[in-house]
Amino acid sequence: MKNFTITALENGLDNVQGFYCNAVNAGLRPDKEQGDVAFIRSEVLCDISAVFTRNTFQAAPIRHFQKYPQGFQTDFVLINAKNANAMTGPKGIEDIDTIMSTLRNKLNVTNPVMSSTGVIGYRLPVDKITSAFDTLDFNASNSDKAARAIMTTDSFKKELAYRVELDNGEHFTIAAICKGAGMINPAMATMLCFITTDADIPKKDMDELLLEGTEHSFNRISVDGDTSTNDTVMLLANKRSGAYNKEAFAEALKQIMFELAMMILKDGEGANKLVAFEVKGALTVEEAQKASMALSNSLLVKTALFGEDPNWGRIASTIGASGIACDERKLTIHYDDLLIYSDAFRELDAEREERAYRIMKQEQFRVTCDIGLGEASYTSYGCDLSYEYVKINAEYRT
Amino acid sequence: MKNFTITALENGLDNVQGFYCNAVNAGLRPDKEQGDVAFIRSEVLCDISAVFTRNTFQAAPIRHFQKYPQGFQTDFVLINAKNANAMTGPKGIEDIDTIMSTLRNKLNVTNPVMSSTGVIGYRLPVDKITSAFDTLDFNASNSDKAARAIMTTDSFKKELAYRVELDNGEHFTIAAICKGAGMINPAMATMLCFITTDADIPKKDMDELLLEGTEHSFNRISVDGDTSTNDTVMLLANKRSGAYNKEAFAEALKQIMFELAMMILKDGEGANKLVAFEVKGALTVEEAQKASMALSNSLLVKTALFGEDPNWGRIASTIGASGIACDERKLTIHYDDLLIYSDAFRELDAEREERAYRIMKQEQFRVTCDIGLGEASYTSYGCDLSYEYVKINAEYRT
Repeated sequence: MKNFTITALENGLDNVQGFYCNAVNAGLRPDKEQGDVAFIRSEVLCDISAVFTRNTFQAAPIRHFQKYPQGFQTDFVLINAKNANAMTGPKGIEDIDTIMSTLRNKLNVTNPVMSSTGVIGYRLPVDKITSAFDTLDFNASNSDKAARAIMTTDSFKKELAYRVELDNGEHFTIAAICKGAGMINPAMATMLCFITTDADIPKKDMDELLLEGTEHSFNRISVDGDTSTNDTVMLLANKRSGAYNKEAFAEALKQIMFELAMMILKDGEGANKLVAFEVKGALTVEEAQKASMALSNSLLVKTALFGEDPNWGRIASTIGASGIACDERKLTIHYDDLLIYSDAFRELDAEREERAYRIMKQEQFRVTCDIGLGEASYTSYGCDLSYEYVKINAEYRT
Repeated sequence: MKNFTITALENGLDNVQGFYCNAVNAGLRPDKEQGDVAFIRSEVLCDISAVFTRNTFQAAPIRHFQKYPQGFQTDFVLINAKNANAMTGPKGIEDIDTIMSTLRNKLNVTNPVMSSTGVIGYRLPVDKITSAFDTLDFNASNSDKAARAIMTTDSFKKELAYRVELDNGEHFTIAAICKGAGMINPAMATMLCFITTDADIPKKDMDELLLEGTEHSFNRISVDGDTSTNDTVMLLANKRSGAYNKEAFAEALKQIMFELAMMILKDGEGANKLVAFEVKGALTVEEAQKASMALSNSLLVKTALFGEDPNWGRIASTIGASGIACDERKLTIHYDDLLIYSDAFRELDAEREERAYRIMKQEQFRVTCDIGLGEASYTSYGCDLSYEYVKINAEYRT
């Protein structure tokens, strides 16, 4: 039995005591109504855990972050859109240092960090950014504005907050803003997520739970197979509430990250369907993961989803091509609860096809492939490919 | 110095003495003007080499082929479109046996083989196919008709033939028909290729050179990352000409397979550009291949090609994400002969950007990434993603 309750709150990061966030348009983005430079400020130095892209060419802000000693504390995160500050060499680090020293002079911050998203290969417009500090209110908190400022091809802002009440009467808050767009945004696949909390969480738990949360959320959605130079997930904890319970925090963090990941998928341009690809009965978790990710990344499968084509052939073919141990006589495939392929019957009869079609009409459904060889399972999440161009292929069979 | 000359011929398979091919519409395809069942017949039993898909769920015709003993000879290949006969279990094999025994009775063929392309998961319409034999002229040769009959989403037929003259005055002929469409055909990515020759080639060389040719052609083009259940390349040799020279044959075979592979790429629906991705200076060939294939498969890169966006950032990011050993200070990137990225300069000046833009305007060009760490290289080939939906992303930077 759970000894805590989790309640959703409005207004994202604004809920977490001791943190401030805001944004301004520094002229990086043509639309002056929307910010392009945002910050998250903490009243005190706070613990920070981060997960970064595995791309070898990590962007300058990530390399800058890693120059701080292990376990350092931060009191300021600066985020900009429209310029990734990636592949900018030593100059990219120098530019961050320049911006940071301006910030230190102006605000008395100690260990500022930075995060960027946008085009690769251009120097940051340092003057524009530092000039904008003059008009930026660092004592306000406007999560909405910050969440909008970090958007690139996103079509809606992504922010969430939860209040966690423990059964001893204590409570803490956890909140996040996030940007990233689904598979269908190869132009800018960078994913950024900033989470703040006033929970009294030990640094060790932060590291452990952030990794675990990432593995169960952002690492399970099919973006476009490319890993950006800038992908970043950060968790900042100022411990202000004095309240903590590991199980409760883990649950709230997992929930917030999973929901943000689903928001990213839903923001795939033109994507209409959100599909869970569960692979079970595999010999190992690695094999289940390999097959599950193959399904959520497959153009073959994505176009079939869009075409609402109940033919299971592309699902099976993708499993077969994934390189995992499998056998067509042991495999079964379900769409939600409907068995759609097994060795016992192969061709779809009209009734089953009609039922499958009704399931595929839904905005969300589940594809379950039971490999029938072992006990391991893995679920990843994908969306359909719903562009006009795909129509040609999706309608191929009809 | 080459001791042979290679000359292109019209009319594909019709050029190779001792072989016949033709096609008929058996009612598998609605358009009665186009065939859907084709054959290649040899007057004598001839050696056959084949390369098949690595998909675990190999289609029934492939499993049927493999029941013949190693090194068997064939005198008949039957090919159908619109139905893959894949994931059809033992019944799929039985259906082929039924068709084959009809053929044996009708034509006195000895070891017929079959090849199929189309939708997965449906039994072959055996009666339609065998009934069509009554109206099919097995003594005619019509390469054009056969090449069109095996098309699925292809927008043009693919056939080629070469006459190879040796310096001793002897000559032989090699010809092929092929089907397959580029990256942009996730609906039916199956690639089939049938090559006939009258060269007096030993079976050992057939096996060796077909594998080598496949590695330098079909395995180097970016289809959609999915491997079909039916991919097949076959080489049939009746030795009729009495002429052979290994070097000459290898060259002609390589040329025919490479050109067919480029035809497949060019047939990517709406694809406008054919780009060679050369990765050199890698530590190992495996690493060079990994990075090169990552480039030709990347949606990020393909949309940049379509957008004619000279920004090298997506190329670099894809190299960095590919997991190979690399260092942004040692990397250089060229578009044709234009150096577009090196550690010495990173931001593109206006003149270089203009020159890069002119290169990208071409229908064909080369992207060369020198990793700068070793001696190994690999080249793969890709096309752009040119659909309306991609426009949104391709124009992101402007």
